[in-house]
Amino acid sequence: MTANGLLGEIADIGRDARHGGYSRHAYDSAESTLREWFIEQAGRRGLDVETDRNGNIWAWWGHPGSGAVVTGSHLDSVPGGGAFDGPLGVTSALAAVDLLHTKGFTPAKPLALLVFAEEEGGRFGVPCLGSRLLTGAIDADRARALRDAAGITLAEAAAKAGQDPERFGADPEALARIGCFVELHVEQGRGLIDLDSPVATGSSIIAHGRYRFSFAGQGNHAGATRLIDRQDPMLPAAAVIAAARRIAAVTDDARATVGKLIPTPGGTNVIASTVDLWLDARVAGNGRTAALVEDIAGAAREAAAAEGCTVTVTEESYSDDVVFDDALRTRMDGVLGGVPSLPTGAGHDAGILAAHVPSGMLYVRNPTGISHAPEELAEPADVDFGAQSLAQVLEDLAR
Amino acid sequence: MTANGLLGEIADIGRDARHGGYSRHAYDSAESTLREWFIEQAGRRGLDVETDRNGNIWAWWGHPGSGAVVTGSHLDSVPGGGAFDGPLGVTSALAAVDLLHTKGFTPAKPLALLVFAEEEGGRFGVPCLGSRLLTGAIDADRARALRDAAGITLAEAAAKAGQDPERFGADPEALARIGCFVELHVEQGRGLIDLDSPVATGSSIIAHGRYRFSFAGQGNHAGATRLIDRQDPMLPAAAVIAAARRIAAVTDDARATVGKLIPTPGGTNVIASTVDLWLDARVAGNGRTAALVEDIAGAAREAAAAEGCTVTVTEESYSDDVVFDDALRTRMDGVLGGVPSLPTGAGHDAGILAAHVPSGMLYVRNPTGISHAPEELAEPADVDFGAQSLAQVLEDLAR
Repeated sequence: MTANGLLGEIADIGRDARHGGYSRHAYDSAESTLREWFIEQAGRRGLDVETDRNGNIWAWWGHPGSGAVVTGSHLDSVPGGGAFDGPLGVTSALAAVDLLHTKGFTPAKPLALLVFAEEEGGRFGVPCLGSRLLTGAIDADRARALRDAAGITLAEAAAKAGQDPERFGADPEALARIGCFVELHVEQGRGLIDLDSPVATGSSIIAHGRYRFSFAGQGNHAGATRLIDRQDPMLPAAAVIAAARRIAAVTDDARATVGKLIPTPGGTNVIASTVDLWLDARVAGNGRTAALVEDIAGAAREAAAAEGCTVTVTEESYSDDVVFDDALRTRMDGVLGGVPSLPTGAGHDAGILAAHVPSGMLYVRNPTGISHAPEELAEPADVDFGAQSLAQVLEDLAR
Repeated sequence: MTANGLLGEIADIGRDARHGGYSRHAYDSAESTLREWFIEQAGRRGLDVETDRNGNIWAWWGHPGSGAVVTGSHLDSVPGGGAFDGPLGVTSALAAVDLLHTKGFTPAKPLALLVFAEEEGGRFGVPCLGSRLLTGAIDADRARALRDAAGITLAEAAAKAGQDPERFGADPEALARIGCFVELHVEQGRGLIDLDSPVATGSSIIAHGRYRFSFAGQGNHAGATRLIDRQDPMLPAAAVIAAARRIAAVTDDARATVGKLIPTPGGTNVIASTVDLWLDARVAGNGRTAALVEDIAGAAREAAAAEGCTVTVTEESYSDDVVFDDALRTRMDGVLGGVPSLPTGAGHDAGILAAHVPSGMLYVRNPTGISHAPEELAEPADVDFGAQSLAQVLEDLAR
């Protein structure tokens, strides 16, 4: 089946009527349905399915073993995300297996499709959680204790979905099987529009951190409390949103975003007692993200003090710059007859694996340039071209 | 039973483990339990209970009729509110009936206890909804269509709770029965602390409006989207929070608060596509609130345009200044042997009724000065003193 056909099969799963697009979060009903769908699809293709200690699903063509050629992506989304971010890599991997079957190709090396658990961090806050657990980049105790907005821990959600969270943690045996990893992904910017190309390889990912700013003031009545008596944490929170943009704008290659902010209790006629906001910060060049965040934290402390509030800043995740394996990239480029290579500000599981095994990315053109939103798009012809390109790359690597 | 005893009976209903304090919202499980509890308490006292067309509960001592002396308050709360805002008036009314029973008093005029539906607007956004519907201050069609955060309409919630929302609307017959209305309420400021008095009458309520600011931008990827390509509605939303404080601070007798803000979709690694925030604005003097809001809306439009976003501002509710009936206040003052009289920035159902019938307030001292938060307090001795004061006032009015 084509990747377009496979995307059509899952087009109704996890639609978000409120936000538009899709909300498919780790171990929720929609993502669990997609995981079951993938396992069924892998079974139809004669692949042997296993779920590893950390909830990542492997589907093997040939006997699992070292030197494996591995490809895959994820099935979860951001809230109100697009149809392609994640699923395009999974459906293209399945379609590539079909293309290689049709061609009569039999891989000489083990070949596996890999679906990572919780790539976006849309439910438990830490992105690339499945690959971080697999590689030991996050401590298993900390991961188990992560909570979603309803207070449910990752351990509870995983157990409910049939995983054993006690087994979470670095899995060097599983990791050692990967000879190289290639992730196909929809592009999350305008690079391929400008270059007029349907696909590109990835060159690098800029450093990326997530930081929680927690402001505490004094909840009170919005009508009865004089302005001079207030300790309103919304004021310093607003100052941080403004400071993040102002400081990032004068920092080379920097991005700073506040996309999530929760006032407590969140009543119209209530001065908030606390406000939590999350800063997504990314600056190319190791160490520069921390410096940017420290500048923004300084603005937060100053604004909090001016309002009689307090603030604490917690790093929830951080990844250094990633430079993808040059030999792998050159080899993919040769197989594909010369394609552009793009840096990105978006994180991927391939970026986590890159510290351990040769890893690379294949991007597919996005004619809107928009991602993490319903407008995200890949044209059907580009989807097919991407799956065919992935099949060519896998054939070359696994021969 | 004493008001303290009655408050003790409901102390476990609707506790909010996440926000602290209580979350009891119109027609939710906690508020419905409190309504049933009130009906049962009224029955124990031999009062005849009726629920009017708008979900307000009346408990009659004597035959319902014109010239009735009516007292009451509400049982719903803000999210994470205190134990006293609303329930103190309801439990004091029940306790006052007990005190008058014990004394052998029989009212010559009809006397009723009245529990209003949705006073805070904590679920459907419009405060004093029960009294606004009763008096025709809000259109029934608009009220029925109000939605809570989950998208449930007031009509749906009321129907589920056994009300008939088709009957919502101005109820001149019910209103005509009220000869005068007295609402006892915990004070929501520090007036009685400073005056060293357990109770006060109310003199006035400053004008009060709620306004929804809806910003629209372009949802996108927080890592892959360059700062110059962004249309991030969080930026103008933050500007409004700052502008509201800055403009209110230079306006006499003004309060402006943003306590509720919702970015959509609200993902950490997602530039929001829309942000809704609610401005609570109150300025003494009719017409001055609208002028304050227009200044803030101007700042919103400017900040939105600078970011390539749009903004719409919707008035969700507005009430002019209220001056409580002077004759009623003087009469209460005489009965109570001379007590202070306080203006307030907090809205009440008595303020809505004041446009139609002589209405007044009795405030009970709050030693924290804090309200709409778990720290809200009334000391047991003051609670008893308040109920006794209310009984004296009712005895005088209904004799």
